Amino acid sequence: MIPKDHPRYKSLVTREHLAGSARSGIVSWEGLISHGRGEAFDYLLGEKTSESACRAAKTAAALLRTARHPVISVNGNTAALAAKEIALLQKASGALVEVNLFHRTPERVDQIEVLLRAAGADVFSGTAERLLPLSHDRAFCRREGMYAADVVLVPLEDGDRCGVLVALGKKVIAIDLNPLSRTAKTATLTIVDEVTRALPLIAEACVSLTDEESRDLIVTLDNHTFLKEAQDEMAARLCHALD
Amino acid sequence: MIPKDHPRYKSLVTREHLAGSARSGIVSWEGLISHGRGEAFDYLLGEKTSESACRAAKTAAALLRTARHPVISVNGNTAALAAKEIALLQKASGALVEVNLFHRTPERVDQIEVLLRAAGADVFSGTAERLLPLSHDRAFCRREGMYAADVVLVPLEDGDRCGVLVALGKKVIAIDLNPLSRTAKTATLTIVDEVTRALPLIAEACVSLTDEESRDLIVTLDNHTFLKEAQDEMAARLCHALD
Repeated sequence: MIPKDHPRYKSLVTREHLAGSARSGIVSWEGLISHGRGEAFDYLLGEKTSESACRAAKTAAALLRTARHPVISVNGNTAALAAKEIALLQKASGALVEVNLFHRTPERVDQIEVLLRAAGADVFSGTAERLLPLSHDRAFCRREGMYAADVVLVPLEDGDRCGVLVALGKKVIAIDLNPLSRTAKTATLTIVDEVTRALPLIAEACVSLTDEESRDLIVTLDNHTFLKEAQDEMAARLCHALD
Repeated sequence: MIPKDHPRYKSLVTREHLAGSARSGIVSWEGLISHGRGEAFDYLLGEKTSESACRAAKTAAALLRTARHPVISVNGNTAALAAKEIALLQKASGALVEVNLFHRTPERVDQIEVLLRAAGADVFSGTAERLLPLSHDRAFCRREGMYAADVVLVPLEDGDRCGVLVALGKKVIAIDLNPLSRTAKTATLTIVDEVTRALPLIAEACVSLTDEESRDLIVTLDNHTFLKEAQDEMAARLCHALD
């Protein structure tokens, strides 16, 4: 039991939820470590969405709205933290939702699909094939799903898969709290924000953006600037933290 | 299996080792998340010991050398990552080694004591009592061990216990990669460095320092400066990361 008087009570409750999800098999052990990494960067962001990240989320919505075949790729951490937000974004964007795991077992895929469906998502399932040129199990995806996608949203992504998707000519939208990660640098567009804050912002913008606004956001998309702004935001907070 | 061509191979292998330690019960689920947090800050440190941290490690050795009753407090993460380094520091410093856990069960205490002994440490064991004014299980310690200590080294510590130990009049040495954590700010001395790098530096200095050098280091000890230097180091790296 976490004592209610603990100064980091909320963050500890999220951690305990993730630990429970690891016990039940949804989250991998390594996924817990990734969450901790994200926590540190979110701390440097002041645990709130920056203006820059908000603009990045709108740009993500513009990419999803204008895509021919958009796909949202979901891993264990995303499902555990944000199944409901994924379902809502699917409704707003019309994207396919597909499970893709680094630590892949048929049981984990099933569990995560059940969790997503319970949250209201329509999961694109069926037989996955080893279609991506990767030496680990994130190579598996579905021919009519992610493999055919023109725009892929990858919350909480592993770096080398992001590179492979971009090399296949897809537009990749990452949600990553670390602006220096390989994923963040490789993606077409990176939203440097916490996943449960970012997903509803994208969903909102999918509904509210006009076609003209979407075009403008896509034409002016500059991922390096988004990353630089996130980095500057964190550096500024770090510089003054102990003053 | 982690592919050998993965750009973060070494870090992934450490993660896999910790995940294995979590499976066997040495490391708690929450300990995995803490490790991830540390990883992020270490990344900002360039994954190497700064000059400032090196001086802090020497100062820690001075405190341990001149202590009446020094104790090294070991938790699950420290045991999993650095059992051998703990044993070597014990030999160099003559400190007691005592296990203290946030997620405490008799089985976990036993497992960690077995691991430390296998690595060559002489573990101070026996019946623990609820002696520290804390609402969670880190309140448990041993009357002749940590409770009687004048200097306590706490690698990878939980913030509120650090405050309690300081309030009891003890000199507390923390090893913490986050210079902004409550532990880092509350401790008498904080070494902002990764635990397997910091422990051998302390052990070396325990052997090489003279009494006069020890006195000088203790007289000039200024924890705020150590934290500020670590913070500046990280902010500088963050500022130039994407240039």
